[in-house]
Amino acid sequence: MLKSLKKTTGSAKITVLDYDEQQFQERKAEVVEEPSPPRDRPTVTWINVDGLQPETVEKIGESFGLHPLVVEAILNRDQRPKLEDFGDYLYIVLKMLSYDDKANEIATEQVSLILGSNYVLSFQEEREGDVFNPIRERIRSEKASRIRKMGADYLVYSLMDSIVDSYFTILEKVGERIEFLEEELVAKPTPTVLQAIHDLRREMISLRKSVWPLREVISGLERGESKLIGEEAQVYFRNLYDHTIQVIDSVETSRDIISGMLEIYLSSMSNKMNEVMKVLTIIATIFMPLTLIAGIYGMNFRYMPELEAPWGYPIAWAAMLIVAGLMLLYFRRKKWI
Amino acid sequence: MLKSLKKTTGSAKITVLDYDEQQFQERKAEVVEEPSPPRDRPTVTWINVDGLQPETVEKIGESFGLHPLVVEAILNRDQRPKLEDFGDYLYIVLKMLSYDDKANEIATEQVSLILGSNYVLSFQEEREGDVFNPIRERIRSEKASRIRKMGADYLVYSLMDSIVDSYFTILEKVGERIEFLEEELVAKPTPTVLQAIHDLRREMISLRKSVWPLREVISGLERGESKLIGEEAQVYFRNLYDHTIQVIDSVETSRDIISGMLEIYLSSMSNKMNEVMKVLTIIATIFMPLTLIAGIYGMNFRYMPELEAPWGYPIAWAAMLIVAGLMLLYFRRKKWI
Amino acid sequence: MLKSLKKTTGSAKITVLDYDEQQFQERKAEVVEEPSPPRDRPTVTWINVDGLQPETVEKIGESFGLHPLVVEAILNRDQRPKLEDFGDYLYIVLKMLSYDDKANEIATEQVSLILGSNYVLSFQEEREGDVFNPIRERIRSEKASRIRKMGADYLVYSLMDSIVDSYFTILEKVGERIEFLEEELVAKPTPTVLQAIHDLRREMISLRKSVWPLREVISGLERGESKLIGEEAQVYFRNLYDHTIQVIDSVETSRDIISGMLEIYLSSMSNKMNEVMKVLTIIATIFMPLTLIAGIYGMNFRYMPELEAPWGYPIAWAAMLIVAGLMLLYFRRKKWI
Amino acid sequence: MLKSLKKTTGSAKITVLDYDEQQFQERKAEVVEEPSPPRDRPTVTWINVDGLQPETVEKIGESFGLHPLVVEAILNRDQRPKLEDFGDYLYIVLKMLSYDDKANEIATEQVSLILGSNYVLSFQEEREGDVFNPIRERIRSEKASRIRKMGADYLVYSLMDSIVDSYFTILEKVGERIEFLEEELVAKPTPTVLQAIHDLRREMISLRKSVWPLREVISGLERGESKLIGEEAQVYFRNLYDHTIQVIDSVETSRDIISGMLEIYLSSMSNKMNEVMKVLTIIATIFMPLTLIAGIYGMNFRYMPELEAPWGYPIAWAAMLIVAGLMLLYFRRKKWI
Amino acid sequence: MLKSLKKTTGSAKITVLDYDEQQFQERKAEVVEEPSPPRDRPTVTWINVDGLQPETVEKIGESFGLHPLVVEAILNRDQRPKLEDFGDYLYIVLKMLSYDDKANEIATEQVSLILGSNYVLSFQEEREGDVFNPIRERIRSEKASRIRKMGADYLVYSLMDSIVDSYFTILEKVGERIEFLEEELVAKPTPTVLQAIHDLRREMISLRKSVWPLREVISGLERGESKLIGEEAQVYFRNLYDHTIQVIDSVETSRDIISGMLEIYLSSMSNKMNEVMKVLTIIATIFMPLTLIAGIYGMNFRYMPELEAPWGYPIAWAAMLIVAGLMLLYFRRKKWI
Repeated sequence: MLKSLKKTTGSAKITVLDYDEQQFQERKAEVVEEPSPPRDRPTVTWINVDGLQPETVEKIGESFGLHPLVVEAILNRDQRPKLEDFGDYLYIVLKMLSYDDKANEIATEQVSLILGSNYVLSFQEEREGDVFNPIRERIRSEKASRIRKMGADYLVYSLMDSIVDSYFTILEKVGERIEFLEEELVAKPTPTVLQAIHDLRREMISLRKSVWPLREVISGLERGESKLIGEEAQVYFRNLYDHTIQVIDSVETSRDIISGMLEIYLSSMSNKMNEVMKVLTIIATIFMPLTLIAGIYGMNFRYMPELEAPWGYPIAWAAMLIVAGLMLLYFRRKKWI
Repeated sequence: MLKSLKKTTGSAKITVLDYDEQQFQERKAEVVEEPSPPRDRPTVTWINVDGLQPETVEKIGESFGLHPLVVEAILNRDQRPKLEDFGDYLYIVLKMLSYDDKANEIATEQVSLILGSNYVLSFQEEREGDVFNPIRERIRSEKASRIRKMGADYLVYSLMDSIVDSYFTILEKVGERIEFLEEELVAKPTPTVLQAIHDLRREMISLRKSVWPLREVISGLERGESKLIGEEAQVYFRNLYDHTIQVIDSVETSRDIISGMLEIYLSSMSNKMNEVMKVLTIIATIFMPLTLIAGIYGMNFRYMPELEAPWGYPIAWAAMLIVAGLMLLYFRRKKWI
Repeated sequence: MLKSLKKTTGSAKITVLDYDEQQFQERKAEVVEEPSPPRDRPTVTWINVDGLQPETVEKIGESFGLHPLVVEAILNRDQRPKLEDFGDYLYIVLKMLSYDDKANEIATEQVSLILGSNYVLSFQEEREGDVFNPIRERIRSEKASRIRKMGADYLVYSLMDSIVDSYFTILEKVGERIEFLEEELVAKPTPTVLQAIHDLRREMISLRKSVWPLREVISGLERGESKLIGEEAQVYFRNLYDHTIQVIDSVETSRDIISGMLEIYLSSMSNKMNEVMKVLTIIATIFMPLTLIAGIYGMNFRYMPELEAPWGYPIAWAAMLIVAGLMLLYFRRKKWI
Repeated sequence: MLKSLKKTTGSAKITVLDYDEQQFQERKAEVVEEPSPPRDRPTVTWINVDGLQPETVEKIGESFGLHPLVVEAILNRDQRPKLEDFGDYLYIVLKMLSYDDKANEIATEQVSLILGSNYVLSFQEEREGDVFNPIRERIRSEKASRIRKMGADYLVYSLMDSIVDSYFTILEKVGERIEFLEEELVAKPTPTVLQAIHDLRREMISLRKSVWPLREVISGLERGESKLIGEEAQVYFRNLYDHTIQVIDSVETSRDIISGMLEIYLSSMSNKMNEVMKVLTIIATIFMPLTLIAGIYGMNFRYMPELEAPWGYPIAWAAMLIVAGLMLLYFRRKKWI
Repeated sequence: MLKSLKKTTGSAKITVLDYDEQQFQERKAEVVEEPSPPRDRPTVTWINVDGLQPETVEKIGESFGLHPLVVEAILNRDQRPKLEDFGDYLYIVLKMLSYDDKANEIATEQVSLILGSNYVLSFQEEREGDVFNPIRERIRSEKASRIRKMGADYLVYSLMDSIVDSYFTILEKVGERIEFLEEELVAKPTPTVLQAIHDLRREMISLRKSVWPLREVISGLERGESKLIGEEAQVYFRNLYDHTIQVIDSVETSRDIISGMLEIYLSSMSNKMNEVMKVLTIIATIFMPLTLIAGIYGMNFRYMPELEAPWGYPIAWAAMLIVAGLMLLYFRRKKWI
């Protein structure tokens, strides 16, 4: 099951990257400091906040003039992915997914992005295993790269793209589990496998909840209704939209396959039952008549001529063998054995 | 199952709150009195009516110039959540839900709201456990608070928000019951659990009926088609819309999970049957041949050489043990034991 | 199952009501007479025709200038509810439902309405148990009532409203049957109950067919695209629309509940089978080993030392009791008994 | 299953009807001759081609200036019902259905219609059992009839109407088979009935495929986007549209009912199994203890005091009867017998 | 299951066709060479690239001014079918399907098409079994053919048409497998057949994924929003659209039929179980009472008058035959035998 990570974060870690094609500056701040609004500078400023500490977020919200509801939403970890246009900035909520190998579960974490004219704010819950690191690296090292040339909109695209890319990793893991369970299903359809299929199914329900609203979010960005998204960046968002559709397709396909697995499970249960019943029926059908014959010649009537005859015993044996043979023939004709 | 509370209300209780940023006035009235239409005053007037007494409602309707159909609808407790725009006032119907812990049921109650230019009328069925109390408290005590600064539209938002918030409480209770039943399902899948799952399923059907139309209601308010909803308030209604979508998402997810539980139930029934059948088959398959052997040597033929032989009895025992052993081997190879 | 009543109607009964706020006139006509087109008079004329006699309908159609296809449609009893706008008149088809208590079935009857600028034509199949009677009464007796003040559009609304109201009665009956069947399902899930559930399900399929298209019909009227529906009447049609949505909601909810009942039925069948199998398995598992012990000491070998021993018989009994006890313990541990 | 009739047609049969309100001309042509384009004459020309001979169709296509893709589509018998607007002519594809009583199957045949300003071309696969005959008859005999007065658009309506009418006949046959199978289902639910239900289900899948696209086709004609459909004819196409919706409704209802029948089948299978199991369990539960008692007193221990007692045998009988009686009581209490 | 062919392609093979109605030129190039952009020439240039070698594709992308994301997408083989309009060129992704007879699987391969004003680029994964060969042949040999007369848009249509046509071949193969499995299902419903049905079902899920997005792609081309698609070519794309709808229809129908097959499988399992249970019950019910009779007269009580009687033994036989006969009668009345 998806679990939202709810650690009480002791302190927030703020990283400020300020760059244009030529310049690059980076500052870190363990303690909370008020970031100066970079509105009038020509560079792009990316302020990343790790750890959702209320005070920090509120201060930043104030200094960037965010609506109180946005600050509230950043701190509330149960948001649905959504896009809100406040005119001079966009507020974007996403879900970052990671596969917890130990618990065999998908963990989900909320990421909030604010896109202004020349700045980007990003808020994350957790500190480690950051999917944004490659982007930071690209900004730091590649001077004339696309990300350094283009504006804040492209930075937001890059951040969202790295999140959507991580979904594909999750889907691969899910695919592997499906394949593993399908093999198990054929080899030994135990109740454990059934439980695992159902767990997988519940995860897909939750995964779907994270992914479906994303479609609308990115479609909103791609349509270019906000002037904060330049025409050049729209092509990239359109590309991201296609990726999202692919993720949704995969989730739906997995759901279909998992439903099919449940049906196989029930069918193979039914098959097994049939087999068990056949064994029982064959045994009972063969031995009951034989037992009757033995029972008849175990009766104590005084006048039973067969008992006295010297050929009585062998004939009884013969009768039993013939009856058993006929029964076996009958079952072979019915294709039970 | 959802039950609409249909007490015959002896008398209605009217509470009038009249406030702006600076002033605040509160009046209560156990007996029915005609509230003066507050149209020309600059303050916001909130008239809350507890108990749907026909005469009271009709009098208020008359003095506020409500359409006769609105008065009818307020008194009829089986309305669907809806929004109707009558030009100079909006009529909103909502369902307030509360969890009846004793009956393990969700109780539903109808709330009608009328939003005029500077007044709000609210009509409720029941008197106790009011979710509006915190709002009243905020108006009373916090002089320069947002609710005191903003208009009647924000007051309606606050009332609706407190109702939608109460849905989350219900959903948490439902979530707890689902978890409890899932554990029961694994521990002992009795018919009682099946009944409980079905009860839950019916409740979700009814809950869905209360929540789905809400989406349209709030979306109607948020789109700002009525001039009674100011631009500033629209952001809040948009936020409320997101909450409603989250509630709907949760209801749908719960429905999916409950369907899955029914499938687990049936699968585990099938598993159990299989197990029972295996025990029967193993027992029958082992004991029937042995009984036949015993039966054969219980026959009373005069000429049965084995009976006279001193090693006859031990050999019979040996034969029985060998047959039983072979059967057990066969079942082990089939992985039944 | 829904059955359309197809009596060969001997003669049609025409009732003409002509009224405005002050005046009121009523004429009945057992024999067919040509009603004079009331177009130029300021009063509202309601001509109700009971019994779909082709000649009568055709004559009326001619004198009111109805399109030949409309006349055809009035006489054809298998129309779907629909609304057609012919410019100077609207053609509306509805289904009137009544519960046949004897057959425990829903009977359906077609009603056609023609709304002109100041006249209404209504065509019904049957003569008795008319839901339009209260409206007639209201027109006759209440001089300054709303229906007398407003125009032909309000009359059509009143007629449609009385039909939609009758659906609620049907739904209540259906609700009662569902509750009865649910109790039966718990008490004794016989094949009869299964049959009753399936009958109910088929009725819901047909009921749905009568109700769903109604939504579109009334939504067409409510949107006010025709100038025959005045602005004042639109509010009433909007109200009717809400009622229709409520009916549809109820039908869908009933369908969901009925599906759930089928699942309960199958689950309880499965439960019962499990119980039966357990009884069989317990009996067989206890008695088969005992029978084998008895069989062994019924063998006729000459040298069986146990048979000669004085403690042989009691020991055999003891062995049997111990085996039976162990088996019972095993079943208790498995929670079968 | 639906089978498209694919005879290699030896030769095509061309029938030309040329008429207006006053005049009427009819020509038949077994051999292929080039029909003169009737564009400049004021009469309506209907050229009907029976048998899809490529050369004939191509020649006609050329002389009427049809697009090569249209000629291809007429000859290809696996088209979906569709409407294509080529400006000065409309191309319509329909499916004609007929019930093959011998094979108990629905046979499907493609009909292509071309509507020009004053001509109609119709192409059919088969020659016999033509549903167009009544229309021909009406044109021939009724001088001042509606079909003679109105234009080519009304002729196309008439042709399509006769095809849609034939669907109702098919649906009646399907209805009869459903009723027959429902009775069989109650009387004796054999695998043959199951097979018949599944065959019916597959036919409904195919029927649906023929009928659903028709909705779009006729809706396209009714909306009056092409100037080839006059305003007067639109009313008729709207009427045809309603018929199509009715057909679709019936198909969907039948599908629902057939699904329900499968559920009844499975439920009654489960019922039967339950009954069989009960018989087995009752028999085993009664006779196993009795057999044990008999077995015990068949043991050959020397010291068995009961055997010597004169009341031993009657007591044994009594014991057996008491055990049997108790078992029967137990089953009666469980309501199994 | 659909498998995307992921060979590491050693080298790409480039084929350049340059033609108009009169001229025709063809060049092949095993080694990578930079194709000169044919923008200013009046002829149509078709450059086909077999084998997705990154360097080759990148070079071509550069020289034709393709967006970097397009080059990326061409090389990424997991694209969904899509259409992207970059103003002066269209980017189209398709899936080419082929049936792998050995593995009884559908293999899928990505095809990318770029349509410029007078050139077409096509990129394929594999080299052999090319469905484009007939088109090449037509361009080479038929001087005044439609393909030589019309522009680059018609060439793209031809390429897409040949791909969609290949889908019909796949669907026929699927149809054959369905028919084969349906016969197997009736003849012997083994778990192997169940597995085959499920494999088929999974293939249909994947096939659907390839086909559904195609609808949108071709609908986008057909609507003529891009000026790169001439009016004349639009008719052809509309035709292609109809074919795509037909493919989708077939896929959906197959899915429905496959679901039905699973139901038949489960029903016939249930039937078989019933039959097995009946055999068991009949045998047990007949032989248990007989064995009891034999057991009773095998008891060793001293005083059993029947044992001494001369008619005792025949009477016992008679009793057994009567009991057996009554049981058989009972089963015949129950229609079990």
